[in-house]
Amino acid sequence: MRTRVTDMFGIELPIFAFSHCRDVVAAVSRAGGMGVLGALYFTPEELETELKWIDDHVDGKPYGVDVVMPASYEGADFAPEELVGRLQAMIPEGHRAFVENLLAKHGVPPLSADAEAGRVLLGWTDATARPQVEVALRHPIALLANALGPPPADVVELAHAHGVKVAALASTPRHALKQVEVGVDVVVAQGTEAGGHTGEISTMVLIPQVVDAVDVPVLAAGGIGNGRQMAAGLALGAEGVWTGSIWLAVEEADTPELAKRRILEATSRDTVRSRSWTGKPARLLRNEWTEAWESEESPGTLPMPLQFMLVSDALRRIGRSDATELATFPAGQIIGVMNQVRSAKDVVFGLVEEYGEAVERLDRLTGD
Amino acid sequence: MRTRVTDMFGIELPIFAFSHCRDVVAAVSRAGGMGVLGALYFTPEELETELKWIDDHVDGKPYGVDVVMPASYEGADFAPEELVGRLQAMIPEGHRAFVENLLAKHGVPPLSADAEAGRVLLGWTDATARPQVEVALRHPIALLANALGPPPADVVELAHAHGVKVAALASTPRHALKQVEVGVDVVVAQGTEAGGHTGEISTMVLIPQVVDAVDVPVLAAGGIGNGRQMAAGLALGAEGVWTGSIWLAVEEADTPELAKRRILEATSRDTVRSRSWTGKPARLLRNEWTEAWESEESPGTLPMPLQFMLVSDALRRIGRSDATELATFPAGQIIGVMNQVRSAKDVVFGLVEEYGEAVERLDRLTGD
Repeated sequence: MRTRVTDMFGIELPIFAFSHCRDVVAAVSRAGGMGVLGALYFTPEELETELKWIDDHVDGKPYGVDVVMPASYEGADFAPEELVGRLQAMIPEGHRAFVENLLAKHGVPPLSADAEAGRVLLGWTDATARPQVEVALRHPIALLANALGPPPADVVELAHAHGVKVAALASTPRHALKQVEVGVDVVVAQGTEAGGHTGEISTMVLIPQVVDAVDVPVLAAGGIGNGRQMAAGLALGAEGVWTGSIWLAVEEADTPELAKRRILEATSRDTVRSRSWTGKPARLLRNEWTEAWESEESPGTLPMPLQFMLVSDALRRIGRSDATELATFPAGQIIGVMNQVRSAKDVVFGLVEEYGEAVERLDRLTGD
Repeated sequence: MRTRVTDMFGIELPIFAFSHCRDVVAAVSRAGGMGVLGALYFTPEELETELKWIDDHVDGKPYGVDVVMPASYEGADFAPEELVGRLQAMIPEGHRAFVENLLAKHGVPPLSADAEAGRVLLGWTDATARPQVEVALRHPIALLANALGPPPADVVELAHAHGVKVAALASTPRHALKQVEVGVDVVVAQGTEAGGHTGEISTMVLIPQVVDAVDVPVLAAGGIGNGRQMAAGLALGAEGVWTGSIWLAVEEADTPELAKRRILEATSRDTVRSRSWTGKPARLLRNEWTEAWESEESPGTLPMPLQFMLVSDALRRIGRSDATELATFPAGQIIGVMNQVRSAKDVVFGLVEEYGEAVERLDRLTGD
């Protein structure tokens, strides 16, 4: 296969795989696609370790790193050293009480006294994502992606100065135009069915609009899990696909066992767009956590990054408890068709094979 | 083009066009697709007139009729003659007051004393849709479609006895299976981006699931407005496409001028799933009407058919007033890319031409 993005990155297949797991990233790149490591949860030191591992396991194939630099968030004008403290002070007591009550109702114990301190900010802010960018650019990455809107112009310049292409996720044609204005090389047009932060427009409607709005290559994201969907994405005008949820349940993925089981059992209706994770709408597994935040008792969610600061310890407590009904994580509607564990390589090859079948079928239907 | 549905109906193009306007239905059928008249708003007598007109203007080409027989609604066990009265009595005063206050706030005058009585039930119930079915089957229709879940088994049998194929709209694989169980010949798998009553799963994710779940041909619905989307739908495994919103703004459509203008101006984010029209979630133009029903003052919506009974006179009053900010109607996300008025024939031919280009492009990308 050959599109502008296979040419741009020197890859065989226009398949991009977003994952927080280095094993998946390396496996997809080795299989001919492009693995993209989600940096969000890593400290700069940890990210250094992960990227070093990938460098050692990717057989020289290109890979990317994805950061989260939201264009707007509370505290964007605070000095880095006082960021956490001032933000913590902005979280209302009523919200803290709601979270405590919810955990108490489900019997979730507190963290043990010797538990490591939580990372309440992660890479959700410019201040915390920039050090990740610096680490990433010290490695031979081919792509730097920004998961929330247009990246800062100087970050785009810095990446380009390192010979690194920049991608950004867009959920409207207007977003896409803004991204191209700051110099983004590839737009990932992401439909509402995607996991994680996502807009309202579906992939089917969004892709042609973005393709028509910008001159750079567009990747189709949201609801892409098999080769028929890959063919659909390319028929819509995309030059490749950006996938995420399908890597959560592959053999290589370090996804917790419970989450893997949930994903294999879920239907496509078992996800919901919710602000209960980060404060911005993200598609999550629908469960008692997301329901609680929609209930009449809910105090409403807080703006980014306050919501995650509010809930980060709670999510850790839930993860260590038996309250599996509260364990939430980002997941797209495509989890409804995932019902077996395969290797990342098998998933890549399956996408390509089924893609070929879909294109042949179209030729056949059109021939008569 | 040739698929199982072009064979089934003897049509040239696997393009189905849902419209409440007879001119659109006839124009699409004459152009080689299949027009399907939405019967909902017509009394049996009016429907007779519409179908007679289509018979006279369709040049012998096949066309269909779409009814709404919800599998469940309030009052399903009431005798037809007392249906309206008993249902009216179930509408809470608080809801009536909310509607009156909303209209008063926007300066919407009451209906004039000599205004015709409103049709508060339309074809939303089994009791009111069956007479429409009887009228339809007296005409040479090729297809009877049901817009809300599986049609009653005896209606399917009756249609088949008349040599008429039956289609039904499904928004989950489970719905599709139920429909095939009652004998439906074609499943219309409809994604959340569609206008009117719609589920939560996007077209991109839904179509392959439904195609894999049933043996009958599947039409892709939701977000199909150009040939790239048609190619995407067929790449996903569908044997044709079911379109609706794109016919609202064609030359032939009797859509009110205001609505046409709104559609041409709207972006894909200007629609929202709302229960404020019928009580079941339907995608509508997002405006002050839909916002009001989501606001803190909202009493919540009523189950079908009570909600439409509650609001039907209000919608008529709004339609005759200057309160255009309250005028709502079903519309899919695809209205975001509709920005010119074309003839129905041009839209059909445009779909086919762009479909061909999309398939050629896929061949080219795959060739290297």
